[in-house]
Amino acid sequence: MFVSKEEIQLLYADTDMMGVMYHANYLKWLELGRSALIRDLGFSYIEMEEAGFYAPVYDVQITYKTPLRYGDQAHVYTWVEENGGLKTIYGYEIKNQRDEVCAVGQTTHIVVKKENFRPVQFKKAFPEWFAKYEEVKKK
Amino acid sequence: MFVSKEEIQLLYADTDMMGVMYHANYLKWLELGRSALIRDLGFSYIEMEEAGFYAPVYDVQITYKTPLRYGDQAHVYTWVEENGGLKTIYGYEIKNQRDEVCAVGQTTHIVVKKENFRPVQFKKAFPEWFAKYEEVKKK
Amino acid sequence: MFVSKEEIQLLYADTDMMGVMYHANYLKWLELGRSALIRDLGFSYIEMEEAGFYAPVYDVQITYKTPLRYGDQAHVYTWVEENGGLKTIYGYEIKNQRDEVCAVGQTTHIVVKKENFRPVQFKKAFPEWFAKYEEVKKK
Amino acid sequence: MFVSKEEIQLLYADTDMMGVMYHANYLKWLELGRSALIRDLGFSYIEMEEAGFYAPVYDVQITYKTPLRYGDQAHVYTWVEENGGLKTIYGYEIKNQRDEVCAVGQTTHIVVKKENFRPVQFKKAFPEWFAKYEEVKKK
Repeated sequence: MFVSKEEIQLLYADTDMMGVMYHANYLKWLELGRSALIRDLGFSYIEMEEAGFYAPVYDVQITYKTPLRYGDQAHVYTWVEENGGLKTIYGYEIKNQRDEVCAVGQTTHIVVKKENFRPVQFKKAFPEWFAKYEEVKKK
Repeated sequence: MFVSKEEIQLLYADTDMMGVMYHANYLKWLELGRSALIRDLGFSYIEMEEAGFYAPVYDVQITYKTPLRYGDQAHVYTWVEENGGLKTIYGYEIKNQRDEVCAVGQTTHIVVKKENFRPVQFKKAFPEWFAKYEEVKKK
Repeated sequence: MFVSKEEIQLLYADTDMMGVMYHANYLKWLELGRSALIRDLGFSYIEMEEAGFYAPVYDVQITYKTPLRYGDQAHVYTWVEENGGLKTIYGYEIKNQRDEVCAVGQTTHIVVKKENFRPVQFKKAFPEWFAKYEEVKKK
Repeated sequence: MFVSKEEIQLLYADTDMMGVMYHANYLKWLELGRSALIRDLGFSYIEMEEAGFYAPVYDVQITYKTPLRYGDQAHVYTWVEENGGLKTIYGYEIKNQRDEVCAVGQTTHIVVKKENFRPVQFKKAFPEWFAKYEEVKKK
């Protein structure tokens, strides 16, 4: 199982009046982790779009365990949780500088054609990419 | 079961290069729905903070069914899904102008003390509010 | 001179750890005001895009006078400050429920072709729209 | 004159349906540049807040020259443009991987007391910090 690690730029902009990072912003950091994983495995989300496809988020599940604050050093860890014919599930963990788990989550993605958002088989549209996910996914 | 309905201001700022609303922004609209429900039931989240408490999000689950686009007219429907001693779960549905379900979700909240983020019993800290939730929650 | 008035949805998401609305978010509300002005004058920014053009922001100037807070009721007032051959300048004022001026600003826009971001004359591409701006602009 | 350089994390979240980075997001990257400059000069914005002060943005002026896109590598360059008794003005330039200037801007800040947002003299409240700005500012 391959796990990607990427540092997160925590901005003052991302805080809220509770004095912590606003919860919706964590989803941007899951996106950051996903991009890093794809890059680390030798692929590129931009090339998927240039080939005529999108990989929209179908489902998100996230649990917040310890608040992240401005000034923290945070990293997002990302892996392939499941690699199905139609759906890919990514797993995530966000940790702070004390290695505390701040959030854990999963996002489910499908691949669709740009022109009509119709789902296609990831396996057929991107066979090499799919094969790499088979190799590195969580067993 | 009481369901609150609130119109969402969809901004160009909320779109992404897929041409649709970026998925993380839906969590802001769940916040909007939650505030509307609380207001419609006669309470106020600001008063909770003024009384020395926060109600942070502990968990989010959301499924995206139909993309929202700039120019759509969208509403968020919100209700109390579960009202436990420690955790409150809100349920949500976001619909567009054709009454299509664009997203369904749930958020789980706990009540904590402002100074240390320690959980307290919602039932004890806000008995009237808790009683109202008992009355209007999903059976 | 015609001035459009639009209510702003102030979200908890838009606050920061200073306890006020984060300054960058005001630019989203200028966008909201601009859309409202265009709609009130009988036009539509979406139709501009469907006709093959964008109207990107070229320049922003904004001064913050009184902080907006969560729970405030705010409105954005928008008008055409200048209507040139190549550039349109919008003027803005954001006020709270006590009619205090929270921010004043200007944004400058050009019209460009979608495919190459090359500037075109607003006056030539949208003559009716340009004429309406001549009629309602600040003298 | 000292100029700080900081890489910007460009997220898909920051794009809009024009296919470029949404203009309001650049203000977050000015914040990033400002924090980097302060850190590079040996100070810390967090310590200012811990000492009982905020440095809110009073004014922003920004001009957009070349659109930033998802996949670009961008940096923000930041310096002290003016260092007055009451107001500090920061200057900024954002460049892409081809060293093209994407945006130039200025932000004006005042120092205020946390409890009442009343302005104080930066020079008096933070004499060392002020002296450092005198040393490195644009002549």
